[in-house]
Amino acid sequence: MAITMAVIGAGRIGRIHAGNAALNPAVRLAGVADAIPDPAAKLAAELGTRVLTVDQIFADSAINAVLIGSSTDTHADLIQRAAAAGKHIFCEKPVDLDLARARECEKVVKASGKACLIGFQRRFDPTFAAVKARIEQGEIGVLEALTVISRDPGAPPVDYLKRSGGIFKDMLIHDFDIFRWILGDEAQTVYAAASALTDPKIASEANDADTTAVTIRTVSGKLCQIHTSRRAAYGYDQRFEVLGSKGLLQAGNHRPTEVAAWGTDVVSFDKPEHFFLQRYEKAYRNELDHFVAALGGHEKLRVGIEDGVKALELADAATTSWREGRIISLR
Amino acid sequence: MAITMAVIGAGRIGRIHAGNAALNPAVRLAGVADAIPDPAAKLAAELGTRVLTVDQIFADSAINAVLIGSSTDTHADLIQRAAAAGKHIFCEKPVDLDLARARECEKVVKASGKACLIGFQRRFDPTFAAVKARIEQGEIGVLEALTVISRDPGAPPVDYLKRSGGIFKDMLIHDFDIFRWILGDEAQTVYAAASALTDPKIASEANDADTTAVTIRTVSGKLCQIHTSRRAAYGYDQRFEVLGSKGLLQAGNHRPTEVAAWGTDVVSFDKPEHFFLQRYEKAYRNELDHFVAALGGHEKLRVGIEDGVKALELADAATTSWREGRIISLR
Amino acid sequence: MAITMAVIGAGRIGRIHAGNAALNPAVRLAGVADAIPDPAAKLAAELGTRVLTVDQIFADSAINAVLIGSSTDTHADLIQRAAAAGKHIFCEKPVDLDLARARECEKVVKASGKACLIGFQRRFDPTFAAVKARIEQGEIGVLEALTVISRDPGAPPVDYLKRSGGIFKDMLIHDFDIFRWILGDEAQTVYAAASALTDPKIASEANDADTTAVTIRTVSGKLCQIHTSRRAAYGYDQRFEVLGSKGLLQAGNHRPTEVAAWGTDVVSFDKPEHFFLQRYEKAYRNELDHFVAALGGHEKLRVGIEDGVKALELADAATTSWREGRIISLR
Amino acid sequence: MAITMAVIGAGRIGRIHAGNAALNPAVRLAGVADAIPDPAAKLAAELGTRVLTVDQIFADSAINAVLIGSSTDTHADLIQRAAAAGKHIFCEKPVDLDLARARECEKVVKASGKACLIGFQRRFDPTFAAVKARIEQGEIGVLEALTVISRDPGAPPVDYLKRSGGIFKDMLIHDFDIFRWILGDEAQTVYAAASALTDPKIASEANDADTTAVTIRTVSGKLCQIHTSRRAAYGYDQRFEVLGSKGLLQAGNHRPTEVAAWGTDVVSFDKPEHFFLQRYEKAYRNELDHFVAALGGHEKLRVGIEDGVKALELADAATTSWREGRIISLR
Repeated sequence: MAITMAVIGAGRIGRIHAGNAALNPAVRLAGVADAIPDPAAKLAAELGTRVLTVDQIFADSAINAVLIGSSTDTHADLIQRAAAAGKHIFCEKPVDLDLARARECEKVVKASGKACLIGFQRRFDPTFAAVKARIEQGEIGVLEALTVISRDPGAPPVDYLKRSGGIFKDMLIHDFDIFRWILGDEAQTVYAAASALTDPKIASEANDADTTAVTIRTVSGKLCQIHTSRRAAYGYDQRFEVLGSKGLLQAGNHRPTEVAAWGTDVVSFDKPEHFFLQRYEKAYRNELDHFVAALGGHEKLRVGIEDGVKALELADAATTSWREGRIISLR
Repeated sequence: MAITMAVIGAGRIGRIHAGNAALNPAVRLAGVADAIPDPAAKLAAELGTRVLTVDQIFADSAINAVLIGSSTDTHADLIQRAAAAGKHIFCEKPVDLDLARARECEKVVKASGKACLIGFQRRFDPTFAAVKARIEQGEIGVLEALTVISRDPGAPPVDYLKRSGGIFKDMLIHDFDIFRWILGDEAQTVYAAASALTDPKIASEANDADTTAVTIRTVSGKLCQIHTSRRAAYGYDQRFEVLGSKGLLQAGNHRPTEVAAWGTDVVSFDKPEHFFLQRYEKAYRNELDHFVAALGGHEKLRVGIEDGVKALELADAATTSWREGRIISLR
Repeated sequence: MAITMAVIGAGRIGRIHAGNAALNPAVRLAGVADAIPDPAAKLAAELGTRVLTVDQIFADSAINAVLIGSSTDTHADLIQRAAAAGKHIFCEKPVDLDLARARECEKVVKASGKACLIGFQRRFDPTFAAVKARIEQGEIGVLEALTVISRDPGAPPVDYLKRSGGIFKDMLIHDFDIFRWILGDEAQTVYAAASALTDPKIASEANDADTTAVTIRTVSGKLCQIHTSRRAAYGYDQRFEVLGSKGLLQAGNHRPTEVAAWGTDVVSFDKPEHFFLQRYEKAYRNELDHFVAALGGHEKLRVGIEDGVKALELADAATTSWREGRIISLR
Repeated sequence: MAITMAVIGAGRIGRIHAGNAALNPAVRLAGVADAIPDPAAKLAAELGTRVLTVDQIFADSAINAVLIGSSTDTHADLIQRAAAAGKHIFCEKPVDLDLARARECEKVVKASGKACLIGFQRRFDPTFAAVKARIEQGEIGVLEALTVISRDPGAPPVDYLKRSGGIFKDMLIHDFDIFRWILGDEAQTVYAAASALTDPKIASEANDADTTAVTIRTVSGKLCQIHTSRRAAYGYDQRFEVLGSKGLLQAGNHRPTEVAAWGTDVVSFDKPEHFFLQRYEKAYRNELDHFVAALGGHEKLRVGIEDGVKALELADAATTSWREGRIISLR
């Protein structure tokens, strides 16, 4: 199947996806749209394609796939319009900040029969994907427990946080997806503790937290703990480990180089890759290629809109658990 | 100060402490007592000392320190008798399985004015102690979060578990002490999830769990997550990591050797030290030496009976949280 | 400066360079030539360029740079023709197997005033380049000693080895360049020991060795040891470490993933990247980009034909040392 | 067999061996001798034994083993007297700085029929011993190459170096033993390059080197490279790696703790153990225990005076190679 793809959103993440699309020989890039003209023109020029409007994209029957990398508040509307226009969809996470709205999108997409990949790019990271594959091969037997450590180098501005939906929807949405994907099980109870420790304004102005500790117990009794922080002095930290009856698999950070320096005080190594653009560079590429392969019928779509909805359910539950100080039962 | 010490309990842990006492040049070993004659005789012979009865020990005014390594159900009684007899005390954890009884012991000991070290030997492990020292030197700034991973190679027999007080008192008592010691803060809320995943009899016969996920939020908002399992296929696993405003300190496992083997499939290293006797060999030695140094006035006692009581409070709270499915507020 | 580049050689390495050239926005790819038509046509189609003959390339004044990735025996001739045609040159190592011939090429290139980068891609590996940069920043003070470990997963066919110029020219040429580049010094004496241990035909039919131990003492007394093997059961191994007055810098292998697996016997990690195409994927890309940046005047050319000649001098000396069982003095 | 042992030499190394002897339940410590009275008295007091003269030791027929930890220039004489007196011998390395004299000692000892362990304690290091055991179990197949890195934290005073016999006898004697022990083969050719890089007085006053690069080719064609330095800014470095047809085994350094510190610049670990007393603490203990077990007939003596002589032959050859700038053939 020939993929003719248009990209909506020429910001940081849109540029990455568009660049990866341009590298995939099965994709013809039909054009780029953005609410702001300049970034769209710049990206289109770099990739040798045209600037389009969103309306043009949905009206052009030659375009059979859209990549939605615009701001979060546009996702649900664009998903629904794209599904209505009969296009396959690759949409950045989250589907929407509102669970009910996300569920509506899921219905529309399911009714359309088109693919809708939600951008949980971590599933396509070489290290994370290798852990998943080894679990499926039975290397560690029956799964029992998952520990996730997820830390950002620094918090976004408080103004961003006010509109972010809160740390559980904005940051842990990825970790909730990791939980479902790695343990292959659904949550029965969710408990979330949290604090604002790095900047008092995160609590006083954004009514949010920056440090969290989430516990999920699954319907089969598996246990998952997620710890996140908005600020790690040493940078970006993306690790998890999963215990099974036959052993443990750990997913570690990637480093820019493999230099070891033996000095008068310590033996030192590089810090992890700087931030998500560096750490997940290969993941973004793999994700786009997987989307294209799935449209072409060469692979089965590995993450769909239902995964986006279910991660949001967990984020909602964690938010409530934290705000109301109680354990949330989901099933 | 010359230390004349008697050892009560010639089992596995009593032998270790007695052996370390024999290696400490400031200690004169006065004798060994055990409810069962043979182990006492064997240990006494190996260390060139005598077999005594417990009564003889408490009656002998030349003995100014007792080391209690007998079974858990004897601890409280022996602590109280030793305190009454004016002896310094080194007692294995726990003080008692019953919190009220442990608090009684604390009162008696405090009234006696004698030292009472409770055997949280992990505080004396070189790696764990180095993390603590570096925290105190300010290396990672203000503490924010602690993640503890603590796994045993295999569960004890179900008959043992029935009398153990449950996993939170029997196994996590050490981890609760690590929490208090490393974060230097007290718990405000405790939440515990748990499952019996390794052996159904642990639930059905011992009414216990083998896999736990505990979350503690401190009075200052710090977050601590503890994950434990009774059974790790790869052996004994003792790690924690503590995040602060300026960085992260991780305490890793120790390995028997530093061999790396590059084979046709993988590059492999030794598993961690087999179990606590191997991993904490140095810790037990350091702990005994510290007790002696504290009695001699050379060091300030670093862990007292109040620490034993407070760890038990947390174990009690976690047990209740798990059994009743609710968050426990301690303060 | 706009770079219009033609690629000679559409085999494994030619394809890599051509692909990287296509990714560099400052390069216009003018065409691809190969003695065999099919690979050239395939590569040209993939990159959206034309098939050219070598004569067409040298005759086309719009082409100002040629990338020579054809077989070793064509290098010297093509370098000389390219220089005569006034083109900048990016040529795979080695310049030639014959030192005198390589020196002729050097003269012709120098006379032409054009750039001639010889493909020592390891200099552009992120890890190796970071070590070099940190040395130049003075991190380890005055350099004293270098240890290089360089092992291939398996030996090429004996028929290839017969025409290869021997292990020192065919395999260690890269390591000799690493020596000169990292220590920033020239050899005074060279000693080489070697054996054929993996396959007796390597000695009996190719009159070659598969395992080597080279020692170089520089004019300033620095010491370098190089160990290579044609066959490592665990794959490709590319490491070195450099000792200075203030510390040690080690360059380690890269791994496909950062998974750690804790099993019943060992804790294991991935083997190093499979072979040079994987390990040096980024290096090849960086190398091409550097060549383009150097032609554009944005960077100073970091490796020239003189480096190719000097590495060959060392390979010649090592070959003689081994064959004649004596220490070779170069200065 | 009951071992009644006397210790000659109450300096740094004598104290270690004497302390280990005191910890071995099969040993009765008969006394301690030293040319200087104070250290002997101090050590005897600590261990609860007597001060003896060397003559008393050799005259006392109840003493069946002597431990020689006195200065190097006394070793040969004491070995010969001990053998003549019918005593088993544990003597620190080297047998003597003079090869002919060492060979005489070997003859006398062999004639006596008594055990004579030479103190190559590295063979008893847990990591090194594990590598040896795994080689013997066939894990890496047929051995091909050995790379040894051996660095001290700092050079001894020049006055010491003048009397040391030179770096190859004083420092590399251990590495030559590692070579023979690990590869299980004998040298055919030896080549040594060396420089004085850390302190010009090492060359000008002691006529010695501080940095070496030795190559040994064995009779079966195996290759060994040894790199040593008297001064590593980061401390003590004791590593080797051995390549076989089926894989690679690496022996790494030991660290005081397993703390990882993730800071704003790097992720750092402890440096290796400070120096040989720390790194080889367990090795010294294991070595003494092995000697006792061998005397008791429980183990076969794993290192004898012939090993001391053969390491010295290699040190002699390396010294000549370096001084005369030629390759030495031994067989």
